[in-house]
Amino acid sequence: MATIAETIARIGPLDEGAMARARERQAALTKPPGSLGRLEALSVQLAGIAGTARPSVARKAIVVMAGDHGVTAEGVSAYPAAVTAQMVANFLAGGAAINALAGGAGARLTVVDLGVAADLPARDGLLAWKIAPGTANAARGPAMRRADAARAVEAGIAVAGREAARGLDLLGTGEMGIGNTTAAAAIAAAVTGAPAAAVTGRGTGVEGEVLRRKVAVVERMLAVNAPEPGDALDVLAKVGGFEIGGLAGLILGAAAARVPVVLDGFIAGAAAILAVGLCPAARPYLIAGHRSAEPGHAVILDHLGLDPLLDLGLRLGEGTGAALALGIVDGAARTLAGMATFGEAGVAIADCGLRIAE
Amino acid sequence: MATIAETIARIGPLDEGAMARARERQAALTKPPGSLGRLEALSVQLAGIAGTARPSVARKAIVVMAGDHGVTAEGVSAYPAAVTAQMVANFLAGGAAINALAGGAGARLTVVDLGVAADLPARDGLLAWKIAPGTANAARGPAMRRADAARAVEAGIAVAGREAARGLDLLGTGEMGIGNTTAAAAIAAAVTGAPAAAVTGRGTGVEGEVLRRKVAVVERMLAVNAPEPGDALDVLAKVGGFEIGGLAGLILGAAAARVPVVLDGFIAGAAAILAVGLCPAARPYLIAGHRSAEPGHAVILDHLGLDPLLDLGLRLGEGTGAALALGIVDGAARTLAGMATFGEAGVAIADCGLRIAE
Repeated sequence: MATIAETIARIGPLDEGAMARARERQAALTKPPGSLGRLEALSVQLAGIAGTARPSVARKAIVVMAGDHGVTAEGVSAYPAAVTAQMVANFLAGGAAINALAGGAGARLTVVDLGVAADLPARDGLLAWKIAPGTANAARGPAMRRADAARAVEAGIAVAGREAARGLDLLGTGEMGIGNTTAAAAIAAAVTGAPAAAVTGRGTGVEGEVLRRKVAVVERMLAVNAPEPGDALDVLAKVGGFEIGGLAGLILGAAAARVPVVLDGFIAGAAAILAVGLCPAARPYLIAGHRSAEPGHAVILDHLGLDPLLDLGLRLGEGTGAALALGIVDGAARTLAGMATFGEAGVAIADCGLRIAE
Repeated sequence: MATIAETIARIGPLDEGAMARARERQAALTKPPGSLGRLEALSVQLAGIAGTARPSVARKAIVVMAGDHGVTAEGVSAYPAAVTAQMVANFLAGGAAINALAGGAGARLTVVDLGVAADLPARDGLLAWKIAPGTANAARGPAMRRADAARAVEAGIAVAGREAARGLDLLGTGEMGIGNTTAAAAIAAAVTGAPAAAVTGRGTGVEGEVLRRKVAVVERMLAVNAPEPGDALDVLAKVGGFEIGGLAGLILGAAAARVPVVLDGFIAGAAAILAVGLCPAARPYLIAGHRSAEPGHAVILDHLGLDPLLDLGLRLGEGTGAALALGIVDGAARTLAGMATFGEAGVAIADCGLRIAE
């Protein structure tokens, strides 16, 4: 398994030459300059990642990382922790939202157990790489040992390598873990310095007294553990989760393989904060798929300097927002790579008895 | 060819029973209630249109209507009118943005010449239904005769019928016509009462003095013709365009065939205003694909009470925003129809040795 340090060393800058050629090509395509809006800059980013002015993102995958959270003992979720395992089973049976949306996006789906607190039967499509059956209760001490945090990140790196070896042009992140909006809130607060109340939201649907308790739990996680904001592994170990560490590794591994990563929502954003904390050079490989209804997500997006493609009020996770955004990213690649330039069109269109304006 | 009156008479309300069953199903799906955000209401709309609680939008089409505008003689566009015909040729050769994006969305593409000011050679994928080689200059008198406005709408109805006969679950609108943001601005101002300056934008990219002239031209179109706000055919005849009338008919024909219509941007919105003016019952069949960068589009969306799915800064037309939104609509249908309910999952998941929470 590649270490974090080895992987970070492989993450290079985007290909400026390819980006310059992509910008030239964009300016020559048969449309008014700028009229494809955000697709244009997105297409140039894809060109810089792929190292070609005509990128394709045909081969797509969604990876869903799953793990449980000891902090659910504090009563921070509307669902019992057992739902994590049940939803993993639902993913494997094909009945969840991410199955429907990955199918629509033409993306294959891989599910990874990094820390589910139940024995999951072996099944096609499941990587059983459990580090531990759930984290410890981070409101009373660290969620995991630092060595296990590193193992979670390295597992994510290994999943990215495995997916890249299967053929991969575009990766979407997904997760499942009852309690993980609490962990993500603690990560966001620890790294950005935002108050717990600004980054703690309804999660699966808590409100009123339970939401107030959730904010207090996030405050306690930070007070008890005092995570070091500049040390991403420390933050992950003290207030994070196995699936969040796995996603951070997935991002690093994808960037090392020069694969663009479409982030889902709040949890993916917390993982991205950690990945970029470990390696700032990973940042240009990120695309924010959507803006989650979780209030902390906006704080994370600001911190990362990302502007999401979609804003549809989703707050499900699983990778659903990333899956919906894959089609937009695909459109950016298809227009850059597939459209005719004015010069090319002049030739092709002569067949129709017409010439196109230069 | 079906008349406008015959078609309007066939447009019924959405199926309330199917919508109620869809809402029940949404509430029972394996996710926290409401967590799929806007996809949930969208899926219920699709259910009401299709008359089933498990709708599919697998068979998709984009129809691009093309026509020229005599008002280009006033110097309102950054491109010469000849570009309309050239871009139609580009659509047929497969080199335009809409080709790339329709391909990505899995939608077939039909191009209709309702008023291009050039002889277009016959070609597969082109319906040559030209009413006249461009409209008259609407800054000096009516753009077309009322009878031709009705013919344009009826042509659109016929195209919808033809597409429905090929098998159609979801229709996206597209258009091409140099000068048509000027016509759309005049329609928006005439029907909503908004001032010309509030609905007139950069179109293909005009600015400064040319943009000021464009606003003055829209004002002149309204002053010279005095279109009757409550008479959609009068507005279409006096300040509209053949392709805009065609799109209005396409919307009516789709609604009569119980096919949801994903609107592209500003021009599609102007056509939708006319379609809903002719038949308010067509309104529930509409989905706003995206928010165009054209300022008048927001005025139109407010008038129609539509909230667009995407906001990506597009201002190209052709159906590009609609094509990108097809995947979101597809996701709404797939989640409603394809996800397991908690009850269904309980059975399927028993195979995995786990039971899902009720």
